[in-house]
Amino acid sequence: MARIVMKFGGTSVADLDRIRNVARHVKREVDAGHDVAVVVSAMAGKTNELVAWTRGASPMHDAREYDAVVASGEQVTAGLLAITLQSMDINARSWMGWQIPIRTDNAHGAARIMEIDGTELIRRFSEGQVAVIAGFQGIGPDNRIATLGRGGSDTSAVAIAAAIKADRCDIYTDVDGVYTTDPRVEPKARRMKKIAFEEMLEMASLGAKVLQVRSVELAMVHKVRTFVRSSFDDPDAPGMGDFDNPPGTLICDEEEIVEQEVVTGIAYAKDEAQISLRRLADRPGVSAAIFGPLAESHINVDMIVQNISEDGSRTDMTFTVPTGDIEKALAVLDRERSKIGYDAIQSEAGLVKVSVIGIGMRSHAGVAATAFRALAEKGINIKAITTSEIKISILIDSPYAELAVRTLHSVYGLDKG
Amino acid sequence: MARIVMKFGGTSVADLDRIRNVARHVKREVDAGHDVAVVVSAMAGKTNELVAWTRGASPMHDAREYDAVVASGEQVTAGLLAITLQSMDINARSWMGWQIPIRTDNAHGAARIMEIDGTELIRRFSEGQVAVIAGFQGIGPDNRIATLGRGGSDTSAVAIAAAIKADRCDIYTDVDGVYTTDPRVEPKARRMKKIAFEEMLEMASLGAKVLQVRSVELAMVHKVRTFVRSSFDDPDAPGMGDFDNPPGTLICDEEEIVEQEVVTGIAYAKDEAQISLRRLADRPGVSAAIFGPLAESHINVDMIVQNISEDGSRTDMTFTVPTGDIEKALAVLDRERSKIGYDAIQSEAGLVKVSVIGIGMRSHAGVAATAFRALAEKGINIKAITTSEIKISILIDSPYAELAVRTLHSVYGLDKG
Repeated sequence: MARIVMKFGGTSVADLDRIRNVARHVKREVDAGHDVAVVVSAMAGKTNELVAWTRGASPMHDAREYDAVVASGEQVTAGLLAITLQSMDINARSWMGWQIPIRTDNAHGAARIMEIDGTELIRRFSEGQVAVIAGFQGIGPDNRIATLGRGGSDTSAVAIAAAIKADRCDIYTDVDGVYTTDPRVEPKARRMKKIAFEEMLEMASLGAKVLQVRSVELAMVHKVRTFVRSSFDDPDAPGMGDFDNPPGTLICDEEEIVEQEVVTGIAYAKDEAQISLRRLADRPGVSAAIFGPLAESHINVDMIVQNISEDGSRTDMTFTVPTGDIEKALAVLDRERSKIGYDAIQSEAGLVKVSVIGIGMRSHAGVAATAFRALAEKGINIKAITTSEIKISILIDSPYAELAVRTLHSVYGLDKG
Repeated sequence: MARIVMKFGGTSVADLDRIRNVARHVKREVDAGHDVAVVVSAMAGKTNELVAWTRGASPMHDAREYDAVVASGEQVTAGLLAITLQSMDINARSWMGWQIPIRTDNAHGAARIMEIDGTELIRRFSEGQVAVIAGFQGIGPDNRIATLGRGGSDTSAVAIAAAIKADRCDIYTDVDGVYTTDPRVEPKARRMKKIAFEEMLEMASLGAKVLQVRSVELAMVHKVRTFVRSSFDDPDAPGMGDFDNPPGTLICDEEEIVEQEVVTGIAYAKDEAQISLRRLADRPGVSAAIFGPLAESHINVDMIVQNISEDGSRTDMTFTVPTGDIEKALAVLDRERSKIGYDAIQSEAGLVKVSVIGIGMRSHAGVAATAFRALAEKGINIKAITTSEIKISILIDSPYAELAVRTLHSVYGLDKG
């Protein structure tokens, strides 16, 4: 007997048939004797419809009222799932954010969870009741509904798991786990059994769109063991209720991963654009002069590469932005040219960033050299490189993206089971 | 400067354009300097969709979860209207039932309002803020959303008007007031300027579907002056903002109606069925023996006519039920025949009840006689008669319904302005 949080996204609850399928997943865990809290998103398409209405009412809408409108989607799903569970003789009760309560800060539309009182949920577990919780929402200090921003239901699920000290948080989604790379690019990609929080953070933020980054951060902080698994599997297939080893990928503390691979995955992000500032004055404050104005213009800068200057006076600075932001970025840099002080500006859009990720590389030398050699053998030119303790990111021309992913996936032995 | 509650039904807020039109009505009153609370229903069709989902999830659904799902419709409208008002530079804020709070009893799905705390609403009026309140909902003693039953937004509006001591409660609907009779039957029907609560109660329950009966009862108890008016009028047309005399019908205390007409309106109800029990034992308890079992079978009995028996031993009893319930009613009476003790049973479906309503008839003799004579002159046969202090109801064959309504409308002088 354990305590489990089960989270189902919009496509998993898109209609009454799918809600019934979700209820069968829940029943399996209830029948196994576990305490169960379910977190649900709005039915697929519903949030978009509600958001469009708020925009139609006024493009400059009040975030508090946006929240009141948009949070209704999860409310509907929570009620419908509770009804469906009851029809299967499961004692179930829906919970809105304000009822638990899930207390957030006052940043309506993109609120952060501050505190969850799990007392009543836990008391009702002891009465055999399943909690069906509307995801994506809480209540702010102003006593008004606050939503957590798009994809916030993952964050709700992990935060609730932490609050009720759940043994596991299962994120049911439309993929059956986290893969060593994108299977559409490399059919030999394998589903991982386990991945460390830090690795998942890099995978998530680098474009492996399985889990919201915030939810992984939260899981890491509170050490919430999080399974990514498919809601479209037959709920009663063999092994689905295996407590220690359900089908899917476990995101967990690195200490739980006994045999850590050196490299666990290859991620990629398309539509990167590179900007290089040439012969920049190499003086304190020059970085702030560049990236301050870009941040103020809401341009998201990713890779930053600065070489040490040869003579201590002039240097080059290269960084990437989303291709869609390149015109805006160039305009900002042109406007700030005299303050920054550079000779020339060069840019190139339509690039791809490929990243090699693995906690094991902290203790292994030569990981980067392996990547560079493998790409060189395929004639792939490297435009820029950044590294962190557990990641190497390489900027290349976009036609080589798939080849680079497959090459790296193979050279680190990820093809083999 | 006064305090006004404005209520808009589902057809008045069916889409963003209509919500914008509603906002213009609100702006007119705000610009006039009034404190304004707005009560809204769900967008037309939305409640039906939500109800269908709860039934699809399980035909035997839990009323608490039904309430959580269905109340979301009003939540959406309240947020969207608040946004729309803000875009017109009106300080507006949405309120769900649980936020005010509107406290109800525990009868989920058909809850009654127990108490409304208007303190915060009134405080915000003083800051110039408009309250946009989700109708049809409150919060039960179990801290769960409770809905008031279909049409409950009228009741919400009147209850809120009582709680905040509003000078007026304006019910905006798809008709422009209460008429002396159905204008589709009698084109000469006139819109009343005023009607007493008691008269409106008879009009509402007798089939003039303008206002929910419960809301009129509540208005009568709390003496809430209630205007029925059209949401489809141009919000800025001349006279729309006339505080004492807006277009529409005022439902008010009879004391406010200086020149009381003897008869104010003619209502009718179709699809009545008559049942007569012949040569019934005239003994105590016989009525209970008949109507107890019918009530237990949820059959709504309307007119009841019992003659005084000639010799004190045997009598006849006639009553009406909805035509849709006649088979069920006859089955119940057949089953209970030995307990009730009657000789024969007769029934006839497809009848019409026409009612003459007017507070003035309390102090005027001959009102009923006038009706009977007028109908006789047209050759209309009267099947049964019941009367109350302010109403005469007459059961006739349905082909004569329109003729009877027009005849009575004319004989009491209602055609004339």
